[in-house]
Amino acid sequence: MTKQPSARLWEKGTDLDEAIHRFTVGDDPVWDRQLVHWDCLGSAAHARTLNRAGLLTAQELNSLLKALAECDSAAQRGAFEIPPELEDCHTAIEAALVASCGPAGEKIHAGRSRNDQVATAMRLFMRSHTLRWLGCLARFAQAALDRGRRDGGIAMPGYTHMELAMPSSVGQWLHAIAEATLEQMRAAFDLLERMDACPLGTGAGFGVPLPLDREHTAALLGFQRVQRSPIDVQNSRGRMEKYFLRVAADIGALLEKLSGDMLLFVGPAYGFIELPESMTTGSSIMPQKRNPDVLELLRAHGARLRARVAELEWVTGKLPSGYHRDLQLSKEPTIRTGNELVDMLAIAGRLLGEFKINAERMAAAMRPEIYATHAALALVRQGVPFRQAYRRIGAEITAGRFEADPAIIGSTEPGFVSDDTWQTVATDLGKLTARATAERRRCEQAEAALLQIGE
Amino acid sequence: MTKQPSARLWEKGTDLDEAIHRFTVGDDPVWDRQLVHWDCLGSAAHARTLNRAGLLTAQELNSLLKALAECDSAAQRGAFEIPPELEDCHTAIEAALVASCGPAGEKIHAGRSRNDQVATAMRLFMRSHTLRWLGCLARFAQAALDRGRRDGGIAMPGYTHMELAMPSSVGQWLHAIAEATLEQMRAAFDLLERMDACPLGTGAGFGVPLPLDREHTAALLGFQRVQRSPIDVQNSRGRMEKYFLRVAADIGALLEKLSGDMLLFVGPAYGFIELPESMTTGSSIMPQKRNPDVLELLRAHGARLRARVAELEWVTGKLPSGYHRDLQLSKEPTIRTGNELVDMLAIAGRLLGEFKINAERMAAAMRPEIYATHAALALVRQGVPFRQAYRRIGAEITAGRFEADPAIIGSTEPGFVSDDTWQTVATDLGKLTARATAERRRCEQAEAALLQIGE
Amino acid sequence: MTKQPSARLWEKGTDLDEAIHRFTVGDDPVWDRQLVHWDCLGSAAHARTLNRAGLLTAQELNSLLKALAECDSAAQRGAFEIPPELEDCHTAIEAALVASCGPAGEKIHAGRSRNDQVATAMRLFMRSHTLRWLGCLARFAQAALDRGRRDGGIAMPGYTHMELAMPSSVGQWLHAIAEATLEQMRAAFDLLERMDACPLGTGAGFGVPLPLDREHTAALLGFQRVQRSPIDVQNSRGRMEKYFLRVAADIGALLEKLSGDMLLFVGPAYGFIELPESMTTGSSIMPQKRNPDVLELLRAHGARLRARVAELEWVTGKLPSGYHRDLQLSKEPTIRTGNELVDMLAIAGRLLGEFKINAERMAAAMRPEIYATHAALALVRQGVPFRQAYRRIGAEITAGRFEADPAIIGSTEPGFVSDDTWQTVATDLGKLTARATAERRRCEQAEAALLQIGE
Amino acid sequence: MTKQPSARLWEKGTDLDEAIHRFTVGDDPVWDRQLVHWDCLGSAAHARTLNRAGLLTAQELNSLLKALAECDSAAQRGAFEIPPELEDCHTAIEAALVASCGPAGEKIHAGRSRNDQVATAMRLFMRSHTLRWLGCLARFAQAALDRGRRDGGIAMPGYTHMELAMPSSVGQWLHAIAEATLEQMRAAFDLLERMDACPLGTGAGFGVPLPLDREHTAALLGFQRVQRSPIDVQNSRGRMEKYFLRVAADIGALLEKLSGDMLLFVGPAYGFIELPESMTTGSSIMPQKRNPDVLELLRAHGARLRARVAELEWVTGKLPSGYHRDLQLSKEPTIRTGNELVDMLAIAGRLLGEFKINAERMAAAMRPEIYATHAALALVRQGVPFRQAYRRIGAEITAGRFEADPAIIGSTEPGFVSDDTWQTVATDLGKLTARATAERRRCEQAEAALLQIGE
Repeated sequence: MTKQPSARLWEKGTDLDEAIHRFTVGDDPVWDRQLVHWDCLGSAAHARTLNRAGLLTAQELNSLLKALAECDSAAQRGAFEIPPELEDCHTAIEAALVASCGPAGEKIHAGRSRNDQVATAMRLFMRSHTLRWLGCLARFAQAALDRGRRDGGIAMPGYTHMELAMPSSVGQWLHAIAEATLEQMRAAFDLLERMDACPLGTGAGFGVPLPLDREHTAALLGFQRVQRSPIDVQNSRGRMEKYFLRVAADIGALLEKLSGDMLLFVGPAYGFIELPESMTTGSSIMPQKRNPDVLELLRAHGARLRARVAELEWVTGKLPSGYHRDLQLSKEPTIRTGNELVDMLAIAGRLLGEFKINAERMAAAMRPEIYATHAALALVRQGVPFRQAYRRIGAEITAGRFEADPAIIGSTEPGFVSDDTWQTVATDLGKLTARATAERRRCEQAEAALLQIGE
Repeated sequence: MTKQPSARLWEKGTDLDEAIHRFTVGDDPVWDRQLVHWDCLGSAAHARTLNRAGLLTAQELNSLLKALAECDSAAQRGAFEIPPELEDCHTAIEAALVASCGPAGEKIHAGRSRNDQVATAMRLFMRSHTLRWLGCLARFAQAALDRGRRDGGIAMPGYTHMELAMPSSVGQWLHAIAEATLEQMRAAFDLLERMDACPLGTGAGFGVPLPLDREHTAALLGFQRVQRSPIDVQNSRGRMEKYFLRVAADIGALLEKLSGDMLLFVGPAYGFIELPESMTTGSSIMPQKRNPDVLELLRAHGARLRARVAELEWVTGKLPSGYHRDLQLSKEPTIRTGNELVDMLAIAGRLLGEFKINAERMAAAMRPEIYATHAALALVRQGVPFRQAYRRIGAEITAGRFEADPAIIGSTEPGFVSDDTWQTVATDLGKLTARATAERRRCEQAEAALLQIGE
Repeated sequence: MTKQPSARLWEKGTDLDEAIHRFTVGDDPVWDRQLVHWDCLGSAAHARTLNRAGLLTAQELNSLLKALAECDSAAQRGAFEIPPELEDCHTAIEAALVASCGPAGEKIHAGRSRNDQVATAMRLFMRSHTLRWLGCLARFAQAALDRGRRDGGIAMPGYTHMELAMPSSVGQWLHAIAEATLEQMRAAFDLLERMDACPLGTGAGFGVPLPLDREHTAALLGFQRVQRSPIDVQNSRGRMEKYFLRVAADIGALLEKLSGDMLLFVGPAYGFIELPESMTTGSSIMPQKRNPDVLELLRAHGARLRARVAELEWVTGKLPSGYHRDLQLSKEPTIRTGNELVDMLAIAGRLLGEFKINAERMAAAMRPEIYATHAALALVRQGVPFRQAYRRIGAEITAGRFEADPAIIGSTEPGFVSDDTWQTVATDLGKLTARATAERRRCEQAEAALLQIGE
Repeated sequence: MTKQPSARLWEKGTDLDEAIHRFTVGDDPVWDRQLVHWDCLGSAAHARTLNRAGLLTAQELNSLLKALAECDSAAQRGAFEIPPELEDCHTAIEAALVASCGPAGEKIHAGRSRNDQVATAMRLFMRSHTLRWLGCLARFAQAALDRGRRDGGIAMPGYTHMELAMPSSVGQWLHAIAEATLEQMRAAFDLLERMDACPLGTGAGFGVPLPLDREHTAALLGFQRVQRSPIDVQNSRGRMEKYFLRVAADIGALLEKLSGDMLLFVGPAYGFIELPESMTTGSSIMPQKRNPDVLELLRAHGARLRARVAELEWVTGKLPSGYHRDLQLSKEPTIRTGNELVDMLAIAGRLLGEFKINAERMAAAMRPEIYATHAALALVRQGVPFRQAYRRIGAEITAGRFEADPAIIGSTEPGFVSDDTWQTVATDLGKLTARATAERRRCEQAEAALLQIGE
């Protein structure tokens, strides 16, 4: 790929202090590698709209699309360079276009600003990753469902306050995970809906005096609507990222709770489950150790995702309206999170599938008093007011006279998950998965068409 | 109201340490005052379901409904006491029912636990406040819209990096606020949807072995569906509150940005707007002062709402599955936020309606170079590639030769908001408002029926 | 106490909007009740300095001191009112002085502003509470030390990753708590040192053109130095509170970890310890329950203290230099934390003293492989390179051939805390306690003298 | 450098799942590059202590020291590899020692664990960076002092609530920055003191049954004391890092406030200061732009440092006692912050030295009413009670009759910083700088001796 003479877009001939330059460029060349693809798509849509407005000839458009496809393909194979002196991928791409297409390259930036350009690239990045998350969530929910149907009938104590509460089961525990996952899938769709507005064409934040058809641009990029207010486009930088990071953090919190539970269950005190040895690590000093580091790191990654939201909010909070360079630091947490969550869900799904259950330890932990509520409610079914039944059983326990009547133990249905319930979960999951697939297809089709010449 | 002998529900005859008791009760008697109404509704629904299951006679049910209506009405007039020795409103209500209805009162807790009971009361509280917020948001958006249509045509500099960028207008600024408010209304509907599942009937977190018709309970309380997983009901405590607090925090962030902008504009350096004197305060030492404290406090309240989310996340984060007493501390941030946001939006709406505009200061701040982009784009319209036009105008400015050509200044349409755009905002707002009203009516009807006897 | 006609200090005759007034006053009348004492002291010091500067006669000074003493004593018995129309305690006190002393009352505010006045009151509040915390910390550390010396020799498994690691003891666990507490005592002294600069006399934030002897004011209030920069005085509002809240949050984090450990140990899976029944609570539905709510709430309070720092940082972060009304919201988190931590430490100290130890369960949990490292190090002492010894023992364990040789088990000294170590802890604690007592006495003497007439 | 066959230290012959391995290793090979130096020093100290205990011969010790020096020097020139299969720098270094020294290499890990080893390396890293920060802070304070002495006499409005308050000066503003910087230097010394305890020799967290002289190890590493409690060593991971990150965040908050002020002052509305063109950047679309991105990024970096504390607290918060793998994620925020703050302070110091002052704009902004308090206090000096004087001047202003009497304007000393005050700042700065230099020298001497053979 031809490298462009290193001129910043806004260079005016005066010297820029090098230390200042390094500081302002920061890590953009690193994170922007993941934005090249999305900026190429945004640039293609913009070029097509310029063409429609008569500001680019068909030939110029084709030349630009060809060059953008080359940038994109270079980036796919890791060969698109963002030299620090060019600041970011947006400048590097414009430079490449000028190098390849001459004056047509110099026309690409008419009617846009880096402000709306970056907003567009970030939104495409987030849309694409939300769709990936949906796929991961579906697989993870399926893992919980499969395991639940397979081993859900194994009895297990239910705890409140980490004390024995009522009889429960492996199924009830996995059902909770499955339902929470479905909730996050719905949250991901809400997120997609909220981000589904095209920022491109709003320029620096106050619109541009060119007759650009913003509805057309939006449609090309697969957005359902235009983001109308140019100032709000800039104000929504950080805001959209916040919504994105929050969904990740909520999924992270779900994995945090799951791994927290599993860490309890896997330890010697509970001993309810075991990880396959291939999923444990050892100690540098203690020869006997097989540590569940993977669970601890899952929890820690969940915790870190929570902090990413704080990072973004601190960077973007309390800023006045309009664009401020602070927003540059919104890229890193967004891009990292987009990728990390995919890994986390993959690992977590495998854990759900592969942990081993020690049904004996679970059964042994169900001491008789765990049936006390069942005993009280058996009295209720015989007409005793609950509060009296409660006190009667309480007194038996205090006096050491309580025994868990087998007839009662036999009636612990609430602790298990019915086949019907699993079927409802499966049905909901199926619908959500189908919706995710359709949405992904719709976006990918729009994206795929953008760099095709002569369309 | 008759006061019940002070027995905690779970009292077993041993002494409870008083300091420990005070510490565990904490501020519950204070915050729970706002939950009495919702717990009465939840209790009424539960009683009706017990009756349907044959566990309460019609007479017992009516006696309980009457007593619940009395508790509720006592609470409305501030006369329902929650003595610390009864811990919380849930215990106090059960005590009142036992005092009024005897054995029927002792039956009310069959098949429920405080765990699902509190979850239900909190969810009803949050639903009701989300609906209130929707009304407040609608009025606030209307204030932005009205003011925008009235004064939107006043020109005003557009800033990026707090530097002069491009010509803008009062309308563009208010349009951004209006659009962001519509987004929050949509977010509030997403929140309602996510909370719209009934926790009641899941007991301590593992279900209850009584034939309770949970679909019926849900319908009575106006919930569209049952929250299926009992463990997830407890796991979702804190999670639902987080969603609720986040919507508030996002609205707070919007008001934070608005008041931050206004604080800049109202100060002597900008001098773009003025608050009516009745909205300013003075200084204890400086006689000349008229301070915009109301704006600063709006910003600070917005900031505090952000921290409420952190408070909730810290209190509930990293807990294992199931109920833990930590959850008690999720009440305060939730209940306070529910109320505070209503005040904040009312104040902010008035500010939008009453600030005065100094159009001359705004006009004077629009120095010629603010039209530089327009000048460059005028060249673009004549066929000059943008990057060349940009450099040409840049050189003129550097050389001090740039003049803002009136013909160009005349073409600054992007800086204004068209009537069509305002109309679209009005249409969207109308639809969202209608939806909020319908939703509110639906919930209120369900709620109103619950305490009616003989229905 | 005579009530002053309700005039805000800065009232200029125009109407103030009532809703705006209510919003700006907020909860000040509530929280300020705890500041009356400190404002009286600050006012007394200021009056004395005005007298020294010839701006108050001796008679006027005495009249003011008498009135301040009355305000203070009214506040002590809960009889000092802060009517909302007077905004805050500072205004209410000035109003009371004017009512009691006439023109002398009208002189008190010469050369100060509410800005430096509030900063002074808050700093005195924080100093006093830091000193209280030191007392609480000393008692808490003593509880850990006493219990450690008493029961430290009971063997207990040491865990890493929540897996069996190496033999440990009750003593090692309590020793960790004691050391961490000593660290927090040192942190509290650092905090005192950092806050030990007098803000009074800097006015609104730019100094005052009166010949006030700030060194004298500082000495009267028991501050070791003057806070020199007036702008920094205002910039340090929020900053000092942050330091204060962080020490509380760190102590909270220590209690969070302690209660987290105890929650594990108290549950049936570990069963290492038990709480006395008087320290547990019950369930509304499950008759058998004895829940360790007190531990969960201690953890939750610790978590909340973390969030208080976030609350303060959000409220005060990103503000430009100088006073802003946002700072008003720094009062609540500071004042609440000051008090809550005292309760938390008292409860936690009692827990340390009163939990019961189940030495058998602890012993039973020490399965042979916990001695694997000791076995490897026994080989090391015989000259085997550690990594070879590690592999050899590892192979024995994998092959199921490992036995914990009694000779090795006998040499587990590292798992216990020596008497010497306890003695060192006791010595350190003694020194820190003595220093806290001396510091407290020094401050209280200065404070006690301030309202004494004729000194 | 010879590469070791890739065996994890704890490898037992079974397969480790590759995806799990990648997930658990994470970014350690990246961040650990910055720990190699510190781990070599820690390892050298440990080897010397093993030698003293008779567990390594002098020859073995020398061989290890030589190999450690080679690792260190390879790392300095970027040639020390941490292959992912070796997990982290600690394993890679042990592998290198085994490769170079044979059985002596296999002895190095006797009596230590990665747990205390990492704690030591991190603490050395933090100590070293705190010392670097002290140097940066001293230079930054000097820049504020120099600029203050040079231009401090330029009058400038003082603002509260962003409204005109009282006359101030460039000097008063810079003085506030200087004092706040001195406070942070003191905080850095407190931090050094708090971290000044050696973790090495506590093993996995429960001590080690070998006769290691921990006082000796501590002295070799330049620590003033041993961290006595082995459990507390592990519990203090995250805690020490939190103290470290907080000091950085507080310095970041100072720079955030400074850059926030400068952003106001540099914008066209205030126009008080200007950045040299070499310190500004341009816009991709607006030809006239010269943006103060460097100030915005300084603010954003400050904001990000606040979030790093949250990241660390979330990762490490609520963990039970002892080591957990979550702690791995404490490395990144710590190491990044160590370096970033150095850059931030360098940039900020240059800004302080090079911004240009527009004294005319400052003077023009000082409208007469800024002297109102001076006028009131002039009356006070004539015997009028302040509150009366305040009302009198207030009435003049309301009536439009107030004029700023030149005699009063002449007496605005409080708005300026006296030479004496600057001298006191200089003296304090000198003392703190000397202390930092001495401390740095002390640590560097200890460190330099560690890898020297035959000492």
